[in-house]
This record gives sequence, structure tokens and C-alpha cells, in this order.
Amino acid sequence: MNTQSSTQGAVNARLAAIRQVMNREGVDALLVPSADPHLSEYLPEYWQGRQWLSGFQGSVGTLIVTPEFAGLWADSRYWEQAEKELAGSSIQLMKLQPGKPGPLDWLAEQVPEGGAVAVDGAVMALASARQLAERLTARNARLLTKNDLLAQVWNDRPELPGNPVYQHLPPEATVSRAEKLARLRQTLRERGADWHFIATLDDIAWLFNLRGSDVSYNPVFVSFALVGQEKAILFVAPSKLDASLCQALEADGIEVRDYTAIHAALAAVPGGDSLLIDAARVTQGLIDNLSSEVRLVEGINPTTLAKSQKSTQDLDHIRNAMEQDGAALCEFFAWLEVALGRESVTELTIDEQLSAARARRPGFVSLSFSTIAAFNANGAMPHYRATEASHARIEGDGLLLIDSGGQYLGGTTDITRMVPIGIPSLEQKQDCTRVLKGVIALSRARFPRGILSPLLDAIARAPIWADQVDYGHGTGHGVGYFMNVHEGPQVIAYQAATAPQTAMQAGMITSIEPGTYRPGQWGVRIENLVFNREAGSSEFGDFLEFETLTLCPIDTRCLLSEQLSEQERSWLNGYHQLVRERLAPLLDGAALQWLRARTQAL
Amino acid sequence: MNTQSSTQGAVNARLAAIRQVMNREGVDALLVPSADPHLSEYLPEYWQGRQWLSGFQGSVGTLIVTPEFAGLWADSRYWEQAEKELAGSSIQLMKLQPGKPGPLDWLAEQVPEGGAVAVDGAVMALASARQLAERLTARNARLLTKNDLLAQVWNDRPELPGNPVYQHLPPEATVSRAEKLARLRQTLRERGADWHFIATLDDIAWLFNLRGSDVSYNPVFVSFALVGQEKAILFVAPSKLDASLCQALEADGIEVRDYTAIHAALAAVPGGDSLLIDAARVTQGLIDNLSSEVRLVEGINPTTLAKSQKSTQDLDHIRNAMEQDGAALCEFFAWLEVALGRESVTELTIDEQLSAARARRPGFVSLSFSTIAAFNANGAMPHYRATEASHARIEGDGLLLIDSGGQYLGGTTDITRMVPIGIPSLEQKQDCTRVLKGVIALSRARFPRGILSPLLDAIARAPIWADQVDYGHGTGHGVGYFMNVHEGPQVIAYQAATAPQTAMQAGMITSIEPGTYRPGQWGVRIENLVFNREAGSSEFGDFLEFETLTLCPIDTRCLLSEQLSEQERSWLNGYHQLVRERLAPLLDGAALQWLRARTQAL
Repeated sequence: MNTQSSTQGAVNARLAAIRQVMNREGVDALLVPSADPHLSEYLPEYWQGRQWLSGFQGSVGTLIVTPEFAGLWADSRYWEQAEKELAGSSIQLMKLQPGKPGPLDWLAEQVPEGGAVAVDGAVMALASARQLAERLTARNARLLTKNDLLAQVWNDRPELPGNPVYQHLPPEATVSRAEKLARLRQTLRERGADWHFIATLDDIAWLFNLRGSDVSYNPVFVSFALVGQEKAILFVAPSKLDASLCQALEADGIEVRDYTAIHAALAAVPGGDSLLIDAARVTQGLIDNLSSEVRLVEGINPTTLAKSQKSTQDLDHIRNAMEQDGAALCEFFAWLEVALGRESVTELTIDEQLSAARARRPGFVSLSFSTIAAFNANGAMPHYRATEASHARIEGDGLLLIDSGGQYLGGTTDITRMVPIGIPSLEQKQDCTRVLKGVIALSRARFPRGILSPLLDAIARAPIWADQVDYGHGTGHGVGYFMNVHEGPQVIAYQAATAPQTAMQAGMITSIEPGTYRPGQWGVRIENLVFNREAGSSEFGDFLEFETLTLCPIDTRCLLSEQLSEQERSWLNGYHQLVRERLAPLLDGAALQWLRARTQAL
Repeated sequence: MNTQSSTQGAVNARLAAIRQVMNREGVDALLVPSADPHLSEYLPEYWQGRQWLSGFQGSVGTLIVTPEFAGLWADSRYWEQAEKELAGSSIQLMKLQPGKPGPLDWLAEQVPEGGAVAVDGAVMALASARQLAERLTARNARLLTKNDLLAQVWNDRPELPGNPVYQHLPPEATVSRAEKLARLRQTLRERGADWHFIATLDDIAWLFNLRGSDVSYNPVFVSFALVGQEKAILFVAPSKLDASLCQALEADGIEVRDYTAIHAALAAVPGGDSLLIDAARVTQGLIDNLSSEVRLVEGINPTTLAKSQKSTQDLDHIRNAMEQDGAALCEFFAWLEVALGRESVTELTIDEQLSAARARRPGFVSLSFSTIAAFNANGAMPHYRATEASHARIEGDGLLLIDSGGQYLGGTTDITRMVPIGIPSLEQKQDCTRVLKGVIALSRARFPRGILSPLLDAIARAPIWADQVDYGHGTGHGVGYFMNVHEGPQVIAYQAATAPQTAMQAGMITSIEPGTYRPGQWGVRIENLVFNREAGSSEFGDFLEFETLTLCPIDTRCLLSEQLSEQERSWLNGYHQLVRERLAPLLDGAALQWLRARTQAL
């Protein structure tokens, strides 16, 4: 019996066990999303129940189990992996595609008239649970959210992560937690809310100037927060805080309770009081604890808006972090250029060398996400990750895509660059040139303050659409300050909903990362981080523009420079001059030489 | 006693009378919108109750009357007029501004706890009535829609319009009404609807290949339609149809009933049957007729989507109409250039001469909207209309904005051009050049089929935003085929909601009309109509591009040509070459000479 079939034997046994529980509880369909009570991007193992039950190890996927059916919905980046990992089990791979019915559509159609669908409400966003319940009413079906059926069969469930929590201190922490709390309380008064419940880990870490390492890449820790005008309670396992941190929090009037005490605390919110919650950022299960007498005030978490708007002081630190990150990249690229002719270089070597170069930089804490080093055909998968079992050697001709980033005490980076290997083809250069045109068009844009960010996407895509090319992902995501590399509320993506909270405000940091993906051949993406700088006011209102923060050459050997307009060439030359001026003082030897060569004006 | 104060005496008496009715009926606030049962842009006098009750003659405004208060909400284009017309009455002008509370917000805040708000449900969109009712629940207030309180005091109410209905015939009518009905019924089957109720006049006129003249500019007639798999009933005053038209309709299986019979017909839709309605395109009052057993299927009117997508045959006629319209404009502009030095020319003369030039063209039916001829400061009001009492003489230096259009049997036109008068200033030319850059940027765009049209707006605005300039109106509206000059569902406006129905499809005709308005100084707008042409398919999907339909020179004497890029200059020269080739065969003498001069390459 090989490992795969042993895993699948286990999966089938687990499915049989969960079906017994479903039968006992009168449940017609069980929904198991990839989610935790904090609606995190990266899940602690404790909440990887979907992986445990299905055997599919990918980070995003949704499992539905009925008495006769089990299906796993995954998007295209996971199909190959899911097919392998589900082989031999009784679980069908359901291919999730834009515009095609997803798992909730399937449920809404397939659930028996008057039936019952169960989901662990503790890990389903309130907004999603409401939508699903609404859709089920058409079939007179109920959504049961009170029970975690999985818990009844998942015996070897991992522990909750217990890593220590530490302070984000000045000078990098530029606003004290007392000040942040005071501002939050002011907002609560304006919103007419007595209390605010926060479940999202980056909001909590930002508010209290604390950091952790409970999940990879995001410097957060498992916790909840409940804030009122008089009280601020942080719910976190006490073993994670040392005595001095406890004292510091107490000094700022913050009470610490155990992580699991949140249920009782929510239940104890007095009837008649009002509680501000963000239905997209809390789960149904937590809200179920509230007395029905508590009046809900709904809106985006004030901390989500506040942390998206970086201060001038934050930006000073971020500019420093960008210089350190750029210097690390130059050292890495200088090494790569020499190494390619002399030794065996694979996608894994690249990850190692680049991570090591970053780790040598002052202020570095960790990577901000798993490095994507993807050669030729692997680059056509936007979320590719090389593994020991499957990775490419960098040789011959083509394009190497490197998307990487770091967490520094003074900022979070995220950058994608294309590296020419041997002699890239004309088509490859054309793709790189077109994508760069998109980067430049958006980087040069000015726009009214408050415009809904999805509406800006067409500016980046217009030069790409001109050649009937498009890409399925968004053009830009928000980026935190020594915090999650993906944060809201802004998002530059024509696929995104134009919600009022996506409005562009000064100080927001966003990626600009158009791409082109040719399955089986190659992929191109170029990514800089930019921040929303005030561009003055006129009789027509206040305007913003982007300041490019990322500092690293864009390799012109991948470009068809004759296809750049005068404006585009001048933007690129100006950018390279800035990169040279800012990074040269941090470099010497081969890295400095590489910087000078790669920032030559076109 | 002058006319104004006599009018205001009447208005105050009417307010007193309606307040008596409100008191008798237990109503705390009366809402009187500018609307009819067809949610038309132009209202027959019969439904101009808001004008009658308030004395404000502007076409858009909302009146609210309470026992102690009367307020008229109007947007900025009407403030001057409203201040004059409301002077002496007890009605306050409430200035409607983007982002500020409107009349519905006022109601939601001011209505007494547990109070009652009345509106004539017959003229309030179902979607709006639902929203208002929902907002009133926060104050436990009710929305009463069953009674038209105004009818109890409006004794000299005008008659319904009774103009004849006529057929839109081949060759210009390219699809028979039988075929259109068959397609509609197919859609109803797909949507699972037994019936479809249509209240919007352009949908009805399009579906039945009929036209009328009950309101200005829109070639429609007052009617309703109810369509099922077996029946198609047109509700229209019988006096409007002659015998041969009645026969033609009967031959196509269309039953004609009196306009007022719609209430009974809706009441007679069998319980258990399903009825497709568009909540934005029917009113609450009409829907109130339905039995509660009728199952509502909600979605956009299939005819609204179908008529937005013009066929290849339609386009042939539209291209002809554009040539005729362009030729009329050339004749007018040639006259204007000569007349300006020799005689007194006012904004009114321009309207007369331009309308006369259009009227001489074959296929011309009427104007498609009231001509805007606006000199200098008047051009800063996007919806300016010169009157006998107030208009400018065209003299001195500056810019003349002319926005005009015609209804032809083979299409509807809408065009705005800037005319240099004397020597326009550098700033004026700069505004014209920047606006033209916006026109060109969007005109050259390619984009994925199905993209939500509001998302394209940033492409037109980017070159305008670059100089911290913006404009408050949308960049583009849909245009009908010998039909309303404003139609949906697409709309190129970042202010518009990105509803799924705004998706761009092949064959849609849209305006591109960016502008710049400097209050008290001048205004600039340049407008062409474009249609969505297929631009081929690639591995990334299907793409569309715009074909410019409007044919008329863009006066380069208003431009700073050195500020145009090579691409922009080449677009403009190409456009002018096309205009010359297409219009020259229709012109001679001074008009031909003018065309040649004004289409010289830059």
C-alpha cells in the first residue's frame, strides 16, 4: 500500500464517519470551507479541517458532503494538485471557474426541499452565512450553524498555535496603541456604537501594536478583541504573553482574557447596547453568542480603514524598508547572473538565495509570502510554487518570473520581476513590454480622491486589452505596514465589487501587477508597490497620484524598447535613475556593478 | 399683481388644499416626484403634478410637503430657475448635491416615529418604493402608495396626450414585430415566466415597431404591454390607432385594449402564474394590481437588452442617418461662419438654423432633444437651454458649445462640437485639447466583451484627471435606434453602479462625451456616438472596440495641436479623412468648402 492509497483509505473512512454524524443529526449536506474564526488568508492547522477530511492539501477549496456525494471545489491553480490528491478517494473534483456555478450554487440547487445544510458557523463569515441562508429559503431548506460536526470525528486535531506575542515598538510603531484606541473610540461614538467586536487578526495586531507568528508570513497571532468606551479586552492564550507585555498592556488599560473567553464576553454584552461589527470580518458562530437584545451597527471595521492609510512617519520607514529590500534583490540578481553560467540553478535555489539575501538586511523579520520563482511554463501559473518533488532547472532560453517579498519592522514588500534567461523570444519580449505599459499607465495616473479603486483598473489594462490580451487576477491589492501582504479595503480589479469602502484615500499602499499567462509556455508579471500621494486640489476637487515605493531595476533586456512611447521611455528612465540613486549607497562590488548596468537609460 | 406673485398665490392655495387632504387622510408627509407610470425622461403634462403644485417648471425635481414644511429638491443646473420660480411661495429650495442627503434621506430622518408618508404609487418605481419603505421601517413609519392625493385637488389637470401612433416600417424597421415577439417569448420561457409586463414606452414602441409623439423628442406613445406565450396585449387609447394599423396589429396576433384597462388586466393574471418584471422599469402602483398569488420573476426587461444591441442592418441605416446628420451640420456650420461677421447671431438663431438644416434632410422626423447652443459662460451649464427671455448674442471672443441631435427613420443622432468665436484663449484651447484627448483615448480602446461599462470611464478621464480636471456627468449613455436618445442598460460613468446589466455587448451604441465646465466662464464638451464592434477573439476571450459613427469635423482651431501625441494626431487626421470621404458626396458649394477646410490634416 503506497502513501497515496493509505491517505485515501483514511479519507474514505473519515467520510464514512462524518456521514454517520450527519445522519444522526438529520443533516442533508455538510459544507466545509477553508476558513477559521478570523477569516484569515493563512490557516493554522487547527482549522485545516477541510484538508483533513478531503485529503486535498491546497490552501483554498470547499468541500461538500451529502449521503451520496462528496465534492471539492477548487479554482484552476489547484486542479492538477487536487486531481492527484483526490485520486482513489470518493471525492469528485468540481472545477471552479469564473461565471460557472460554485459550491453555494450547487447547494442551493441540490439540497432537498425542506432539507438541512450544516456548516461550522464559527468559521463562516456572517455575510456569507446570511447569503447562503437566504438562497436556501427558495427550497425551504435551513442552514444549521451551531454545531461543528467535524469536531465529533476529528480525533487527532492539531493544537492551536502557541507562539509568543511581541510588541511592535517605536520608532517603527509610529502611533501608540493608546492613541489608536482613542481614535477607534471616537469613531464608535460617531457611529453610535457602544462596543466593537474584532475577529480579524491583522486588525487586532495593528490596533494593539502587537505582532506574532501563529501563521506563516502574516505577523499576527490568534486572538479576538472587544472594545468599548471604558473597556478594551484582548482575548489571547495567556501563555503567549510574557509578564512585561502583560504589564505594558495593563498600563494602557487593556484587559487580557483567555482566547476561549470571547464566547462568554459576547454573551455578556448588555441587552440594549449597540455593537459595531463588519459582517464580512466576523463569523456567524461568534455573533450567535450575542443576546438578541444587542443592537447591531454594521459597517467596515474602523481599524481596517485606519490601517490602510499609512502616516507620513510610516512612509519614512517604508521607504527605508524598500531600499533594504531593493538592495537584497540587487545582491541576489548579481549572484544569479554569475551563477547561471557556472552552476546548476533551480527554482528552489533561487528561493534559497533570495531569502538569504533578504535575511541579511537590517530590520528583516520573515518573508511576506512564499517566493514564486517560476521558469517558462511554470510562470504561466500565477500562484505557482516550486517544491522538492517538482521544480524546474533554469537553463536554455526563456523567462524567469520571480515574485517575492519580505516583512521588515518598518514595512512589508512585494515585488515581481522578469529575468531574461538565454535569449527570450520576440513573443516573450512583446508580453513583457505590454505588461510594462500597463504598469506605467497606472503608475502615472492621477485620479479624484475617493474614487472607487476597482474603477482604476481599466487604465492599467487598456494597453494590454489593445492586443486582445487579458489576465484573470486583479491588478492591485492593498499591502500592510509590517502586516499582511494582502489587505483591504482598496482593490484595483475590474472583477471586484465597487463597494463604497474601496474608495482611494491618501496613504494607502497598493500593488500594481498586471500580467500575461500563456499556459504551457510562459508567464509574465511585473509588480511594484505604490502609495496614494496627494496631488493637489483644484476647483474640481482633491486629486491623488501614485508614488512608486518599490526600488529594483526592471530588466530592459526583456523589452522591445522601440515599442515604448516617448512618455513610457521617460517614465522608465526616470524610475531607473531613482533606483540607482537610492540603492547605490547600500551596495558595493558585483551588486553595485549589476545595479549600474541594469539601470542604464534606454 | 405681477404674474410671478399671482402664480405663487395659486401655489400657496394649492399647498393649503393638499394639506387639508393630507390631514383628512392621516398623512404626515407627501412625496411628489417628477415621474409618470412609464418612468419616462420627458413627462406628458398630465403627470406634471410636481410642477402644478410647486410652481417650479424645471423638468426634474422632487417636492415634499408636510404640515409645516414644503421643500423642492433640485440639482445645481436648476438652482437659479428654482430660486426665481419659488420666490414668494412658502416652498424652500433644497439644493441637491452629490454626496449630500437627498429628499429620501430627508424623509427617512424627518418623518415622525410611526408616521405615514404618501406617494402616488402609480408614478414611483417599484425598486424606489421598496427602498423608501425599507428606510422608513427604522422609524416604524409606513409608505402609503395606493392613493393619488394630488388628484383630489388638481381640478384643471391636463388631458392625456392623444397623438396618433404610426408604424416603423421596413426598410428602416429591420426586424418584424412577429420576430421580436417570438424572441421575447423564448426569453420568457428561459426565465420561467408565463407573462411579462412592460411599462416603459421605448420598450413598447421598439417591440411592436410602432412610434408616436406623445412627448417631445422621444418618438413614443403612452401605453402598456402585457405579453404571454399565447397573448400579446397593447394597452393604448383606441383613438390613437387608425383602422389599418389595428388590422396590422391583429394580423400579428396583437390584441389592443384601452390604456386604462391595464389595471384590470394585471388583476386578472391568474394566481400561480409567473410574471417577469423589471423593478426599475415598472411602478409600485401598477404592480399593486396583481394578485398576491402571482409569482414575480425579476430581471431587466428583455426588450431593453435586445434593443440596445443593434443589428448589422440597423447599423447600415444608422451610418446613412449619420451622413445626413453630418451633412446638415456642415451646411449649418458653413452658414454660421459667414453669418457671424455679417448679422446678429444669438443662441436662438443657432437653434433655428441648425434645426432647419436637419429638417431638410431625408428621413428626418424631429429633434432628438432640445438643442443646447451655449456661448461662453452659458456653456458652463451642461444642460443649458437658451430662451426668448434669456440668451446670449454670439460676439467677441470665446467658445460656442453646440449639443444637438435628430431623430431619423433610420437612427438617432447626438453630437456636441465646440466652435471658436473670435480668438479663443489659451486656457479655452487647453480645455478643448484635454477633452479631445479623453474622447480619443476611449474611442481607441479595446476591451473584453461583457465588461461592465462603468469600468471603462477611467480610460476617457485619465488624460483629464492628469491636469486635476473632472466633470460631474457621465462620459457615455446608450442611444436608441429612431428611439430615445438616452437609453440603457450600458452607461460609461464612474458614478454609476456596476450592475451586471451594464455589460458591454456587440452592437450597442453609446456616446463618448467628456467635458470641462468653468462656472461663469465657459464650458467644453466634445461628443461622438460609437458602436461596439467585434474586435476578434484570442485565448483570452472575445474583445470589442468602438467604431465612431458620428461624422462631423472637430474644429482644430480650438486645439493646441502641439499638445497632441503622435497617436492622437493620427487618430484625429484619420477621423477627418473619413468625415471628408463620407460627407463630401452629400455637399456642394460653401458647405463642401467648409468641410474641406475643417478636415485638413494637422
